[in-house]
Amino acid sequence: MIINFSELVPAEITGFKDGDGTLTLRKFEDKSNKIMLFTLPPEASVGVHSHCGNSEIIYILEGTGSAFDGKSWTPVKAGACLYCPEGETHGLKNDGDSPLVFFAVVPEHHL
Amino acid sequence: MIINFSELVPAEITGFKDGDGTLTLRKFEDKSNKIMLFTLPPEASVGVHSHCGNSEIIYILEGTGSAFDGKSWTPVKAGACLYCPEGETHGLKNDGDSPLVFFAVVPEHHL
Repeated sequence: MIINFSELVPAEITGFKDGDGTLTLRKFEDKSNKIMLFTLPPEASVGVHSHCGNSEIIYILEGTGSAFDGKSWTPVKAGACLYCPEGETHGLKNDGDSPLVFFAVVPEHHL
Repeated sequence: MIINFSELVPAEITGFKDGDGTLTLRKFEDKSNKIMLFTLPPEASVGVHSHCGNSEIIYILEGTGSAFDGKSWTPVKAGACLYCPEGETHGLKNDGDSPLVFFAVVPEHHL
C-alpha cells in the first residue's frame, strides 16, 4: 500500500516524550508498525525515551539537529539514519535554524 | 546509533528477489531489523515477493518508478512511502530514466 502523508491529518503535539516545543506528526499505525513523518521547528525536540518491545528507525529528510543515543549527543543532518534498538534510549532535537523533517518507523518485535 | 550508509560496503546484486538488472544495496542488519539503502538504475527492479514473519516499509528518496502491492502497479516518486504488511506481497521497479534510491526497513515481528 501507499501511505500518503499529505493526506493524513497532522497532529500538533506539545511536549512529545517530554520534549520541548510543538511538533507536527503525520502517522499511520497498525498492530505491527507505526510509520511516521515528523516536522520539528527550531528549538523543538523529541524527549529522551526508551523503547521496550519495539525499536525505532529514523531517516532525516530535511534540516539539522542533534541525536542522543543514551550516552552522548551527536550532530545530524539530512541523509542521516538513526537506530534505537529495542531496550535502548534515544532523543532528537532541532538545534538548527530550519525545520527538522524526519521519517520514522517503530516496529513491534513480539507479536 | 547512527548508521552511516556511506561507510557500509555496497553489494552489487543481480536479480534481487528474481527482479531485473543489478542494484546496489547498503545494509545494516541485526536480529530485529534490516535497515537498507537501495539504488536501482533504470530498468532494474526488486522482484515481486512476499513477507512472512516480517514486513517492509520503504521511503523513496530519489527518482521515479512503479510499485506493486499484490494487485496492481502504481507510479511512485521521491517522497512516497510504501508499506508491505506481514503476509502480503510487493515489488518495485525503476521504469524512469534516473536512479531510483530508497530507504527500506524490514522488521521482524515475532522474536
